[in-house]
Amino acid sequence: MMRLGHLLGGRWVDGEGEGTVLRDPTTGSPIATSSADGVALADAMAWARRVGGSQLRSMTFAQRGELLLSFADKLKEGRQAYYDAVLTNMGANKRDAVFDVDGAIAVLRYYGGLGRDLGDARFLLESEVAQMTRSVDFRVGHLLTSRHGLAIGINAFNFPAWGMFEKVATATLAGMPSLAKPATQTALVAYLMVRDLHEAHLIPEGVLSLLTAGGRELADLVEEEDTLAFTGSADTAAQLRSNRHLIARGARFNAEADSLNAIIALPDVDANSPSLACLIDAIVTEMTIKAGQKCTAIRRVIVPERLLDQVSEALAARLSPLKVGDPRNPQVDMGPLVSRAQQESVIAGAALLAQEGKSLLGGANAVEFVDVDPKVAAVVAPTLIEIGDPSSARLVHELEVFGPCVAVMGYREVADGIELARRGRGSLVATVVSDDSSAFVEAALALGSLHGRLAQLNSRTVGENPGHGVVMPQAVHGGPGRAGGGEELGGLRALRFYLQRTAIQADVSALSSLRAVAGEMR
Amino acid sequence: MMRLGHLLGGRWVDGEGEGTVLRDPTTGSPIATSSADGVALADAMAWARRVGGSQLRSMTFAQRGELLLSFADKLKEGRQAYYDAVLTNMGANKRDAVFDVDGAIAVLRYYGGLGRDLGDARFLLESEVAQMTRSVDFRVGHLLTSRHGLAIGINAFNFPAWGMFEKVATATLAGMPSLAKPATQTALVAYLMVRDLHEAHLIPEGVLSLLTAGGRELADLVEEEDTLAFTGSADTAAQLRSNRHLIARGARFNAEADSLNAIIALPDVDANSPSLACLIDAIVTEMTIKAGQKCTAIRRVIVPERLLDQVSEALAARLSPLKVGDPRNPQVDMGPLVSRAQQESVIAGAALLAQEGKSLLGGANAVEFVDVDPKVAAVVAPTLIEIGDPSSARLVHELEVFGPCVAVMGYREVADGIELARRGRGSLVATVVSDDSSAFVEAALALGSLHGRLAQLNSRTVGENPGHGVVMPQAVHGGPGRAGGGEELGGLRALRFYLQRTAIQADVSALSSLRAVAGEMR
Repeated sequence: MMRLGHLLGGRWVDGEGEGTVLRDPTTGSPIATSSADGVALADAMAWARRVGGSQLRSMTFAQRGELLLSFADKLKEGRQAYYDAVLTNMGANKRDAVFDVDGAIAVLRYYGGLGRDLGDARFLLESEVAQMTRSVDFRVGHLLTSRHGLAIGINAFNFPAWGMFEKVATATLAGMPSLAKPATQTALVAYLMVRDLHEAHLIPEGVLSLLTAGGRELADLVEEEDTLAFTGSADTAAQLRSNRHLIARGARFNAEADSLNAIIALPDVDANSPSLACLIDAIVTEMTIKAGQKCTAIRRVIVPERLLDQVSEALAARLSPLKVGDPRNPQVDMGPLVSRAQQESVIAGAALLAQEGKSLLGGANAVEFVDVDPKVAAVVAPTLIEIGDPSSARLVHELEVFGPCVAVMGYREVADGIELARRGRGSLVATVVSDDSSAFVEAALALGSLHGRLAQLNSRTVGENPGHGVVMPQAVHGGPGRAGGGEELGGLRALRFYLQRTAIQADVSALSSLRAVAGEMR
Repeated sequence: MMRLGHLLGGRWVDGEGEGTVLRDPTTGSPIATSSADGVALADAMAWARRVGGSQLRSMTFAQRGELLLSFADKLKEGRQAYYDAVLTNMGANKRDAVFDVDGAIAVLRYYGGLGRDLGDARFLLESEVAQMTRSVDFRVGHLLTSRHGLAIGINAFNFPAWGMFEKVATATLAGMPSLAKPATQTALVAYLMVRDLHEAHLIPEGVLSLLTAGGRELADLVEEEDTLAFTGSADTAAQLRSNRHLIARGARFNAEADSLNAIIALPDVDANSPSLACLIDAIVTEMTIKAGQKCTAIRRVIVPERLLDQVSEALAARLSPLKVGDPRNPQVDMGPLVSRAQQESVIAGAALLAQEGKSLLGGANAVEFVDVDPKVAAVVAPTLIEIGDPSSARLVHELEVFGPCVAVMGYREVADGIELARRGRGSLVATVVSDDSSAFVEAALALGSLHGRLAQLNSRTVGENPGHGVVMPQAVHGGPGRAGGGEELGGLRALRFYLQRTAIQADVSALSSLRAVAGEMR
């Protein structure tokens, strides 16, 4: 059985005892262990701040970009091994694994390119330099410099590769060293990737550290200039955010948490609209990629009441023939969930939602699973629930069932449909299906304040749309309220979390000297 | 004795019992009372969200701007009454009162002008529209829409007028209704200002509410789309930030807290430099305006060791003749602190700092106070402390003595001086004194990550520099780490706290329609 170490203080270290056992959720077999008991975490963090921070701050954006591109190139070589690791450790089929592993490489490549564009600067200046008084010679500009701390990234189990590298890419480009903590139960691929980068001598000293287990004390060890970016449950996010030490130090905190993402068809979509077929396609895709274990997956389907039966039937017709089972079998459409615990949680959650309507498809024993022993495999069938009275329903708008489960509901007036989408009280993303640009714009304005991202879907642009659940690095990722109130990615916007903005009140000659050597923050 | 009510639910209401007594800190006499016991705060907040939110969101930026300008015009008429109120309630002389009251009018006027510039739009779109895939027809833009919540502003005792209106101005322009909670002990001027606006029928329904007492439960009453902006002590900021309900709802929180702001002279400043005189002037101003009760006031003076004695002597020579006492007497340079409690706290804090060096000037009984009974007046003499070994000293870098007290310290190498300034572990502002633009730029880059604002000071630009402690609306106000990690003001930047950013993935026709009706967020 494999043993996952930790890259701390520039070398691989191991903890005491067996620690956590990582399992194959298809077979239940143990595949690796990891323990961080007794590792000198505080020392390793201090070392990374000092050594990694000064390394990165001495590098230009272009050099940091080249570093990210070298990571991407190296990781591309190892892809097959990473796909295998994700299959074994998460029950992911090839499509799921590509989503995570190639996504990680793509985000490194994207930020590498942004670094190249920023060139020889090591800090940024915002475009506008403003007059403050009658004087035109003494003005204010806004400077962005790297925080002299450690960028701690705590990731969710569902994106061990992409989740780690979208944080590492942005922190590195901003000039902050990273400490990555993948969820231990799915840390195998993160371990392999960092090990390969380290063995190829691509990681400058202190720039990237890895902790594959433990980490509960991370919030107790932060300093003023550290950042802590968390992706995971709202409960854990709340615990971290309210940590007394983190608050006393004033370290920055960002969270991506629960989200009841919706897809909503506007009233212009009719029964024969090709855009209605796009809606069905999008839902099936979102339900089945990674068995619905994506924070951006569609949980609620909101359609004009007159389309409700048609949509439910179309979904049932598409979902019921899907094969669920061992992802090693190429005929299998969807693998298991990540663990028996998640399986239990999803089945229980779906049962709760069904109390607010009726279950059209799914349940633990609804299908014959392929090539697995249902007594050990964390398999769940696609689950479809129709909500009876969505405006009086409560759980469907509050309980995130983190698996292949969606709830379908109807509305009469468009305002009611918008209100249902807003009932999620803060979501990462919603897709709005419409053939009418101005109707889309109106919906976007009404949905905006409770959504981090809104995607337009119709038959005309479906081929160009990256898709509801695909987080593109050009767009901000995060959502208000329940979704954690955080933001990541969005091009250069992502760098702000790792940079301190400072108003510089100075004469024009000093501001010009700054401008001459700064990159421009658009 | 006056009774301060609360503007809640669109009318003036009063609480039960006597409540808090507001006093004249010069004489100790009671001047007003206020109680919020038993007021229906949750109902008033819900009403303001609903009524005030839809009012403001239906107005264009230009209309919101005109509203702010009408506030400014009305408040200008009442200035003398506000100065008197600030004198009676805070012991502020005319200069202090102008700083607060005229500052409030100026920030309203500034944001009113920005509203005019933004014109007929009701939301903003960021400039860049990015390509995401090979398609040039389907892109991502970033939309900013008003949060459908209440903008709660909890202010510190030292800026009852400006503190309230800098928050109200930015929230209103962003399209969010405000609930202002001034510190009860100095709420008189805030009450008078809001009363005058209300009596003049200038406040659209629900757009501005006022709570002059109580408010401890505010964080327990927030909703997802609310914002809570707090200015005050780090302890209270930590309590609010860790409030379980606020975290569960994911409401936004911003804090301005403690700050050990420094002024640092770079090595090019020599004994005969006119810029050294500017440094002395700046310190005397910062110590005496509002008796040093400014979150931006200079607390630490960091100079080349060879200048230490000269700077200490020059400061002592300027400070010792200052007259402290009743601000009604035009010969008095500095009034009392806001309360006996603050007086005790400042005297105790100064005594602690003196243990890390020696007291050169000050102490409770150091001067003869003018026209006051020292047994009741909250007077404190200007206090000057020289730190023996600043790099091993601890308190001087950690304890904010919120009154007319500064600590002077020397450095050998410029890097040590920078390090001393950074020991504040997150400050709102530092002033860098230098005649050398490139030395200033280097210092700014080294200080940036722990400062929200840096001001250049020298004899050439002193007349154009708004001053260390003056918070200009064009510049961001806030600081990392100990200073609370928040940001306010900074032109349109301030609006972001009240707006939700949403990535809009759509075809170019939808993005163009948005662009056509949106203001541009630079």
